[in-house]
Amino acid sequence: MESLLNKPRLAQMAKEKGVDAFIATSPENVTYSSGYWALSQWIRRGPQVFVVLPAKDLEGSRVIAPTSLLDQLVDQEDVWIKNITRFGFFHVDKAEGPITDADRRLLELFDLPDEKDGLNALLKSLRNEGLDKATLAIDEMGLMPGQWERLQQELPQATIVPATKLFREIRAVKTPVEIERLRMVATIAERSVDAALKVAREGITEVEMARTFHATTVQHDATPVLGCIGFGARSAMPNVHPSNTALRRGDVIRFDVGGRYRHYRADIARIAVFGEPDPKIVRYHKALHDGVMAAFEAIRPGVKASRVFEIAMEATRAAGIPHYSRSHVGHGIGLDGYDMPDLTPSNDQIIEEGMVMCVETPYYEFGWCGLQVENTIVVRERGIELLHDTDGKLRVLA
Amino acid sequence: MESLLNKPRLAQMAKEKGVDAFIATSPENVTYSSGYWALSQWIRRGPQVFVVLPAKDLEGSRVIAPTSLLDQLVDQEDVWIKNITRFGFFHVDKAEGPITDADRRLLELFDLPDEKDGLNALLKSLRNEGLDKATLAIDEMGLMPGQWERLQQELPQATIVPATKLFREIRAVKTPVEIERLRMVATIAERSVDAALKVAREGITEVEMARTFHATTVQHDATPVLGCIGFGARSAMPNVHPSNTALRRGDVIRFDVGGRYRHYRADIARIAVFGEPDPKIVRYHKALHDGVMAAFEAIRPGVKASRVFEIAMEATRAAGIPHYSRSHVGHGIGLDGYDMPDLTPSNDQIIEEGMVMCVETPYYEFGWCGLQVENTIVVRERGIELLHDTDGKLRVLA
Repeated sequence: MESLLNKPRLAQMAKEKGVDAFIATSPENVTYSSGYWALSQWIRRGPQVFVVLPAKDLEGSRVIAPTSLLDQLVDQEDVWIKNITRFGFFHVDKAEGPITDADRRLLELFDLPDEKDGLNALLKSLRNEGLDKATLAIDEMGLMPGQWERLQQELPQATIVPATKLFREIRAVKTPVEIERLRMVATIAERSVDAALKVAREGITEVEMARTFHATTVQHDATPVLGCIGFGARSAMPNVHPSNTALRRGDVIRFDVGGRYRHYRADIARIAVFGEPDPKIVRYHKALHDGVMAAFEAIRPGVKASRVFEIAMEATRAAGIPHYSRSHVGHGIGLDGYDMPDLTPSNDQIIEEGMVMCVETPYYEFGWCGLQVENTIVVRERGIELLHDTDGKLRVLA
Repeated sequence: MESLLNKPRLAQMAKEKGVDAFIATSPENVTYSSGYWALSQWIRRGPQVFVVLPAKDLEGSRVIAPTSLLDQLVDQEDVWIKNITRFGFFHVDKAEGPITDADRRLLELFDLPDEKDGLNALLKSLRNEGLDKATLAIDEMGLMPGQWERLQQELPQATIVPATKLFREIRAVKTPVEIERLRMVATIAERSVDAALKVAREGITEVEMARTFHATTVQHDATPVLGCIGFGARSAMPNVHPSNTALRRGDVIRFDVGGRYRHYRADIARIAVFGEPDPKIVRYHKALHDGVMAAFEAIRPGVKASRVFEIAMEATRAAGIPHYSRSHVGHGIGLDGYDMPDLTPSNDQIIEEGMVMCVETPYYEFGWCGLQVENTIVVRERGIELLHDTDGKLRVLA
């Protein structure tokens, strides 16, 4: 099975930075590096899982997991790491008689010694693998306060460097399996918008439309995450949460939405008008769309992120919103809703083949409405490939 | 409007621990203490929001929020704090002509000075309020590595103590508005199980049944979070994720599920058998149910959590599973899926009126199946009140 992890990019990063082993701690980096989606880590703050990735021998990678989550290591086909350390008490029973291979594997994991505590288990594993004198790049995002200091004290001969940003850099260039999941979840978001717009009628509320939106996401086996859906003047709120506001003729309907499918996120925007649009809506939306299309033309391997920002901003201003102002015109997307690169005026990062980005030109005018174009693309050798069927033109509902 | 925050309990905690101000940082504690559900903090790791709560003058409380999330402060009716500090660049425009009161309030917030960075904004606010020499209880869970040390350096005259556990203790006794949301989301989980069981038929897959489950949750305006649904031997996996396994006659169907409604979590278990159940299933499930019922009898204000554990374990063993072994028989629930108190053998915490708990006796037998009773209750003056219509008896599907 192909891994989510971009192994060549991790190897390259290790070489460049002189890293002997990477250690993932945050949910995004644990899932990314091992394929392991550890439920309680994703739905709460606090539970910890660690993945140790020795750069020179990835086959020697190890997952350090709570006993209560071992079943997911056996059941999830994305998991490619075979070395497991468990910690914490969790009791299961075993039936008499023959059992399946999966159950046998699971019982083997339960029979491993209980290392009691995650950080102790990590320290023990690093010492066992001879990594206690190594350069360790540790994803600091998933550590609890005091754990970084504890690692430094317990591993005085190791060189410990923060790795959250390094992991983000590795994750920036997607593997084929990641791109297919991102295409799928982007498409699911689009289908969910289509379904929501089909139920548009005078008097329907934002909440009612959101129900159809999320139900469609769920019918495609994705999980709702982002559901900003606003009508009329409410659409100007960047994070508009569906309310009991009713749809009226002439209203803008703004969607800034996207779920999670097999761990991967979508983030797209679509705009519709219920009835005949005000000419300013048409003009402004076209300008925003032109901005994204100009960015699409500019994006290719070798271009700076900041250059894409400039081009999109200039195009949007030239096309009809001279006062257009923004902090960014897009961002990467993957397991996290904001992956690298950010398309900001100050970002010197070079765009590479295989990056997946949400390119966007939102416009929020309080007292009027919000408009937005946001599309997901993958960077190919000669330019972009759109991961949707449509590119977010203004829709007019009869 | 009534607050989510248990203000008397926070005041009592401040007095007991000599705390001058509490500072919330993690999503759960930010929402709990201010009513503010800051979108990006909840759906990603990294974005920060702070809430400063001076114990002697809660009216002087302050929310420190990214500019990009200010709209939610105005739009969310749970928010009771009026003092706002913003940080970070985010551009919005303003329409010509009259605007609503909400938009006016929003534009006022955008006109506040940009404090650039969250931690600097927090430091400035603490100094402005004369809290730089105070005893500050800071929720360490939402801090980034290094921020705790930075606060200590910048506030050398303050006494800084960790507050994640203190917040959990405050949150343990629910306010009436919290109890009503927990009742609602528990009921939504039950209705979603009912809907999922209605589509049970030979050959339906776990994934297909999960679609109906989550779609029902969404139709009730809740968000899917926990969806462990397993058939037959797969039901023995504690965290079973729906697969393409098909339902067969005699299979156990195990649900350990629950969404989020107006920020509050559900976590319930229900067991059904598709067709005539094996006698062992009936016997074991009744033993687990007896365990929960015995816990229900025992739970009242003044009882130790560990005592409830002992009673539930003894009852389950006596009723038919003599080898029954567990780390806990339940936990609090609220904004977090695991609030205090934990019903463990070592927990001396005293149960109080207003605590909401999931009481559970799961049983996982690999090679056979998983069975589980898990119900949500609120502790009243004389005993428990069930927050569901039904108490989780075994269901037999014809």
